[in-house]
Order: sequence, then structure tokens, then C-alpha cells
Amino acid sequence: MAKKASSRLEWRINVPDGASKVLEPESGAVGKIWVGLKGCMGIIVLKVWRVLENAWPIGVADPRKVIHCIKVGLALSIVSLFYYMRPLYDDFGGNAMWAVMTVVVVFEYTVGATFYKCINRVIATFLAGALGVGIHLVAEQSGDQLKPIILGISVFLFASAATFSRFIPSVKARFDYGAMIFILTFSLVSVSGYRVVELFELAHLRLSTIAIGTSLCILVTMLFCPVWAGCELHHLIHQNMEKLADSLDGCVTEYFKENGSEKDLNKKMKGYKCVLNSKAAEESMANFARWEPTHGRFNFRHPWKQYLKIGASLRNCAYCIETLNSCISSEIQAPPCLRKHFSNKCMKASSYSINVLKELVITIVKMKKSSNIDVKVAEMNFAVEELVDALKSLPTTHFIATTTGEESTKAKAEGVEGSEHPSPIMKVLPLVKVVSMMVEIATRIGGVVNAVEELARLAEFKAAKDGKPKQNQPTDKLVADH
Amino acid sequence: MAKKASSRLEWRINVPDGASKVLEPESGAVGKIWVGLKGCMGIIVLKVWRVLENAWPIGVADPRKVIHCIKVGLALSIVSLFYYMRPLYDDFGGNAMWAVMTVVVVFEYTVGATFYKCINRVIATFLAGALGVGIHLVAEQSGDQLKPIILGISVFLFASAATFSRFIPSVKARFDYGAMIFILTFSLVSVSGYRVVELFELAHLRLSTIAIGTSLCILVTMLFCPVWAGCELHHLIHQNMEKLADSLDGCVTEYFKENGSEKDLNKKMKGYKCVLNSKAAEESMANFARWEPTHGRFNFRHPWKQYLKIGASLRNCAYCIETLNSCISSEIQAPPCLRKHFSNKCMKASSYSINVLKELVITIVKMKKSSNIDVKVAEMNFAVEELVDALKSLPTTHFIATTTGEESTKAKAEGVEGSEHPSPIMKVLPLVKVVSMMVEIATRIGGVVNAVEELARLAEFKAAKDGKPKQNQPTDKLVADH
Repeated sequence: MAKKASSRLEWRINVPDGASKVLEPESGAVGKIWVGLKGCMGIIVLKVWRVLENAWPIGVADPRKVIHCIKVGLALSIVSLFYYMRPLYDDFGGNAMWAVMTVVVVFEYTVGATFYKCINRVIATFLAGALGVGIHLVAEQSGDQLKPIILGISVFLFASAATFSRFIPSVKARFDYGAMIFILTFSLVSVSGYRVVELFELAHLRLSTIAIGTSLCILVTMLFCPVWAGCELHHLIHQNMEKLADSLDGCVTEYFKENGSEKDLNKKMKGYKCVLNSKAAEESMANFARWEPTHGRFNFRHPWKQYLKIGASLRNCAYCIETLNSCISSEIQAPPCLRKHFSNKCMKASSYSINVLKELVITIVKMKKSSNIDVKVAEMNFAVEELVDALKSLPTTHFIATTTGEESTKAKAEGVEGSEHPSPIMKVLPLVKVVSMMVEIATRIGGVVNAVEELARLAEFKAAKDGKPKQNQPTDKLVADH
Repeated sequence: MAKKASSRLEWRINVPDGASKVLEPESGAVGKIWVGLKGCMGIIVLKVWRVLENAWPIGVADPRKVIHCIKVGLALSIVSLFYYMRPLYDDFGGNAMWAVMTVVVVFEYTVGATFYKCINRVIATFLAGALGVGIHLVAEQSGDQLKPIILGISVFLFASAATFSRFIPSVKARFDYGAMIFILTFSLVSVSGYRVVELFELAHLRLSTIAIGTSLCILVTMLFCPVWAGCELHHLIHQNMEKLADSLDGCVTEYFKENGSEKDLNKKMKGYKCVLNSKAAEESMANFARWEPTHGRFNFRHPWKQYLKIGASLRNCAYCIETLNSCISSEIQAPPCLRKHFSNKCMKASSYSINVLKELVITIVKMKKSSNIDVKVAEMNFAVEELVDALKSLPTTHFIATTTGEESTKAKAEGVEGSEHPSPIMKVLPLVKVVSMMVEIATRIGGVVNAVEELARLAEFKAAKDGKPKQNQPTDKLVADH
């Protein structure tokens, strides 16, 4: 489909070119309008072209989005059958419109979001319909004079109250759409009830068409390549964890590297920015995930909220990596000899920290308790302590040498550092910053470990059978059977 | 209204109490059901009560939310008149439903969001209606056999394409709602066209009812206490800036304080967390703000995107304050004598940084270029340099004293530090971290200054007339007249 569109556009994009050739011979008002129109067309075509240029990589990067579009088309085509097949049309008539409308409005990208909207729509329609009919009956017994007043006031009150409920965070997270549908149905029922006598039949028809629309949506969204919000959240969290590990690796390697920066490294380093910005996505996915039925390795009451806590602890780490990253790009750098002194210890601490993160990634991917996470955490803490010890031993080996030994300073000034004479503390300062950030990152990785262990407890992850899981093992096949 | 609700609830809340008294004498199936029902009711009442408890402070904190609810009720009551007044009903009949529906769906909290939805709805309905009628005409000429096939395929194709366009970020930001309405209208028109012959009249009626609904929404939202997304964004940005200044102040005061922590300080310190989490809110407001017409001090083409850049630079600062905050709560602290040595310089640097932020707040609030921001930035930089100089001078005054003079170390060990003997670098480490964070924060505040100056250039802020604006001046009355 997209290929077809692109070839059509290539043809179109030639139009302005052709126009510029013919531009001169034409004259008069008609010619000017013609040229103006062509210019406008050219601009519109260029804008559409640019939008399509943006669209192409989106489809390539995630084919499930293309599949989603096909699913929407499919659901709409199926629901259109109600209009084309006479027996169905005779049953529902103009009310079949509600089925089409339901499909358009309710069909979302993830199963969870579709469930959320379907359940909200059905319950809210039912509640509002019942309330509307009830108030209509009360109003009918009050006489023709009072009836519109009672109906008007009830619409005002219920609409205001339902609108206000949408501001309450707990209601907004779960029933925002339901509140809107409640207002909609209630106003329509109580207002149209003024004219239509067969309210009960209308309510029945509307509910059944909505039920048809929602069940069709649920069927299509679950049967054809379902996209589960829960799975997406699960993936997002462990991908973010990997990105964080990569950023940490990239930052430390970049800082202690000997030669010029590599391009790949630079891209790798920026992964923490995704972690910083994924809060909103995580929250909406966790909101939708709890509407989803048991699927794959996730049961209905999977602790999705704990994922948010893991996400928060990851962001906590990411803040530190952001600061670490700014240390790297700062102008004042520690002298090479000092950097060499710390290079090994720092790289060791970072690689052990990364090991811990990678182990957590495996825990989450496999959904099995890791048997050697404690060992890895201990290794990380030990490496960090070694790093701190190296820092502790600095003053006696380095400070005094530079502050009391005048000759050595002079010799150095002629050597590597050139003409600048930074004071000794300023020389160590950048390194001290990097080291203290490494320590802080290790502490915060401890927070991530706790959050993941809490998840393992809540979701009842099984213990891994093999003592040393290999990283290359195909993880997709390993399904925890709870 | 809420008061009334609370008194009603107090009455209701007594029901479970009363039930527990009668619980024992009753027996049999009916009694059990009765008890069960009462228990359910009690739980529901408690849940509703808790929701209302959450709702009350929301309304108190921002009465505009209550006003918004009243506005929704008002708009719905007005649009209901179409049903109650015979001449209007005779004109529109059942189609008046679309006006009610439009009001419910389109009415949003901010003017910008309402405009966004109104404009999207009208344009999308018009485009989809025209396209639907066009395709219907083509299908009609292809004979009765081909007609449903052509219609079905066109619904499938256009619905899929419009759904895909919603994944493109630039389309999603501006036309997400429009794309949905396009699919809805197009399917309804091409599907219902199969039966209804008077398509043109239907399209005309639907467009005019939607026009009535949208114009009513726009009138109500703009005339009664309008909430402008642009103003909200403007407020959010300068409030965040103030919160950042307060956090910085709180953190530094907390670190160098002599006595126990104050409660107020602790609350003040956490302000940076709001800044960290406000990205999503800023983006949605900026999206809505560009739909808003000229209002107050903001014209139609106000550079809202620049506010996002200021927000990003504020978050950049907030990351550093987050790290600074973790320094404060860390276990290892610098010895008091050292802290005292730095206390003044650090407090000075932080207060000058806060001055810069406060000056920027005034610039944004007044929308006038500050005449003395350069002076304040220079002061901040000077204070930071002094701080760095103090750090530079440390080794000669402190390190050597502790590492070479054995006696002084012993004396100290018996004195303030007690029995612990941290190595000299470990003593300074926490201070070095705090100082380097202060330096980094000052650098990043420089970034905020640049972003605000760019805003002043883009939005053509006027130069402030008085050289030294007083902070206590009532800023609300100062309106830049562009």
C-alpha cells in the first residue's frame, strides 16, 4: 500500500517542475489563478510528501502498526455488513449506526486500551440509560409543565458531577472514558425521551448494537496479532534497563578512552534519555494492562504497578548517568596519568554494575528468580569499594607529590599539561566527580534490584533451575508456567 | 454542592452501622441475602465516600475546575433547548442529537483543547462527508452488484490510511481527533448511503448541527471564565522556575544548616520533582495553545514551542538538583570545620543562582526584557568562581595539615570527629561533590537564561523601563501591550 502511494507521489511531485516551465507564456487573470493554484497544489503535495516520508520508517520500524490499521479496516468492513445484509438491517435499522460508531471510537492499538474503552462504554451506557429512563418516568408523573424543568436540571446536575469526577486522579485513570459516555448517553436519553415514547425499545436497541460493536472489536483485537499493553510495558521496562546499561558502558568507555570518540558509542550513550522520557508511556500502559485478561505469561492480577516502581528506580539511575555524561563533556579534564590510574578500577566497577543490570534484564525477560543476583550485587559493591579505596589512597600518592615536590610539578608543566597550572585539587576534581557518580549509580542500581526482587515476589517468579544461565539462551521459549 | 453531598453521605455511612445491630436476629436465605446486600452497599458507599474525600481538595485547590463542570452543564442545558423548542426541533428532528453529542465530546477544560477538537471535528466531518458522497456517486454508477464492493473497499482503505496517519507524530499532535472523526463520518456516510437517498440533505443537516454544537462550545468556553492553555503553560513554566529556585535554596540551606531539619524546608526541597515530571503536561499544553486566538498578552503566533525548550532546560537543572539532594542525604558527611569553611561561599553561590532564576521568573511574568539579568549572571559566575577558588586553595590549607601533620590528626581524632578516621580525601569528597554540583547547576542555569532570552527575542518582549524592578511590585497589572 505504502509502495503504491510513494509511486503515485513521485508522479505528483513532478507537477510543480512541469508548472515552472510553462509559467512564462501564460498571462492574464486566468493564468495567474492557474499559476497560484499550481503553487498551492505544489505546497500541499510537498507537505503530504513530507508526512509520508515520516510515515514510511514508522511502518518499517514496527509492522504491528500497519497490522493495526488493517485490523481497523477489517472491523469496520465487518460491521458494515449490518447495513448490506437485509435481515440484519431490518432488525436494527438506523440504530446499526451505533455499532459502526462504537467500532471507530473503541478500537485501540493495544488489547488493554480496547478492553478499557469497551467495558467503560458498555457499563456507562447501561448505567446512564437506566438512570435516564428512571428520571424520565419521574418527570412524566410531574406533569407537562414540570417535565422539561426536571429533565433540564437533572442533565445539568449529572453532567456537572460526572465532569468533575474526571478531575479525580483515581477516576481519571480508570473511568475517564466511561464518565464521558455516561454524560453522552444520559443527555441523549433524557433529552430524546421528551419525544420518543418507546424509550425502552430504544435503550434495548442501543445497548445491543453497542454490545455487537464492542464484542466485534474485542474479537478482532484479540484474534489477529494482538498487541498486549502488559507485554509492551514488560518489554519497555527491560529495554530501558538494557539502554541504561549501554549508556553507562558508553559513558565510562568514552571517558577513559585513549583515541577519538566513535560514532556508535555516542549513539549508545544517549540511551538514558529514553529512560528519562518514558514515564508517561509507562503509566498509560500500566493503566491499560490491568484491564487485560490472562495472556501468555501474565495472569489477570499481574502486579503491573510494580513495573512503575521499577521504571521510577531506573529513572533515578538515569539522572545520575545524565550527570556522569555532563562530567565527560566538561572542559576541565583530569590529567591522563591520573585517568590511567583510575581507568581500570572504574571500568571494573562499571562493568560489574552493568552485569547486575543485565542479570536483572534476564530475570525480567525469563520471569524467573535469578540465583546469582546476590553474587553479582556483591561483586559490584566490592568493585565500588575498591574504587573508593583507590580514591582514598590518592592524597598520599599524588597530592603531596604535586603540592610539596616543586620539581615534579615543574617537570609536569613542561610535559603533558603544557602551560596550564591547575591546582592539585582541580586536577582530581573531574575524576572525583566521576568516581562519586559511579558510587551513586551503584547505590541506585541497588534500588532497581530491590524493585525487581519485589516484582519477583509479587508475581511469584519461579526460581531458575540452572545455576548459571547463559546470556545467549533463547529466552522467548522459556515460559514460566504460573 | 459538595457540602450537600457530604451531609448526604454522613447519613448513608450510618447504614452499615445500623445493619450490624440487626444482623443477629435475622436468619434464612432471605436474611443472608439481605446482609450480603447491606455489606455490598456498605463497601460501595465507603468507596464513593473515599472518592469524594479525594475530590473535595481538588475543587478547593482549583475552583476553576468546579466552574468548568458548571460550564459543561450549562452548554448541555442550552443545547437541550433544541429538543424542547418545537420550531427548532421541526427543523432538525433526530439530527439535533448530533449537537448534543458534539457538545459532550468537544467541550474541554482549556480553550485551546476545545478549539482543537472543534476545528478538527468540523474540517474532518466536511472532508469525510464530501469524500463519502463522491465515492457514493461513483459506486452508484457502477451498478447494484459492484456498489457494496466499492463501498466496502473504500471504507477499508480510507479507514486504514487514516488510522495509520495517527501514528505519525506530527499528525498525532495536531490532527489525532480529526483522523478519528474522519473515519467515523466517512464510514457512516458511505455505509448509510446504501439506504438513504437524501444523502446531501443528511450531510447538510449533520454539518449544521455540528456547527451549532461547536460554536456553542466555543462561546461558552470563551465567555465564562476561560481557561487558556497558553496562560496555563506560561504559569507552569514560571512556577516550575520558582520551585527550582526554592529547591536549590532548600537543599543548600539543609546541607549547611546547624540544627535539625525543619519540616517546611523538606517540603520546599521536593519542588524539583514537579519539574522532573511536568514534561507531558507542558507538551500537551503547548499543543493546545497554538490553536488559541489572541488573548491577553499572547498573540496568535506566540512562540509556544520555546516554552518547551525552557521547560527542557529547567529539567536539565532539576537533574542536577536531584543529584545534589542525594549528596545531602548521603551517610558520609564532611567534617563540620570543613563545612563551615565552605558554608558562606556555597550559600553565596546558591543565593546568586537563585537571584538569576528569580530574575528570569520576573522576566517571564512581566513579559519584559530584564535590564539587569546580565549583571546577575555575572554575579552568579563570580560567586561560583570564588567557590571554585576556595576549593583550589584547599590542599595547601587542609590536605597537608591532615596528611603530614600527625599530631593535628590525632588532636582532631580526639575532638570533633570522634573515633572515626576517614582518609583526607574522603573527608572532602562530599563537599567536593556539593561544590561541583553547584558549578554544574550554575552552568545549566546559564542554559535556562539563554532559552528565556530566545523567548524574549521571539515573542518580542519590550525592554523594562525601570532599571531596578522591585520584586514586590504587583506583576499582574503590568501588561505588555503587543
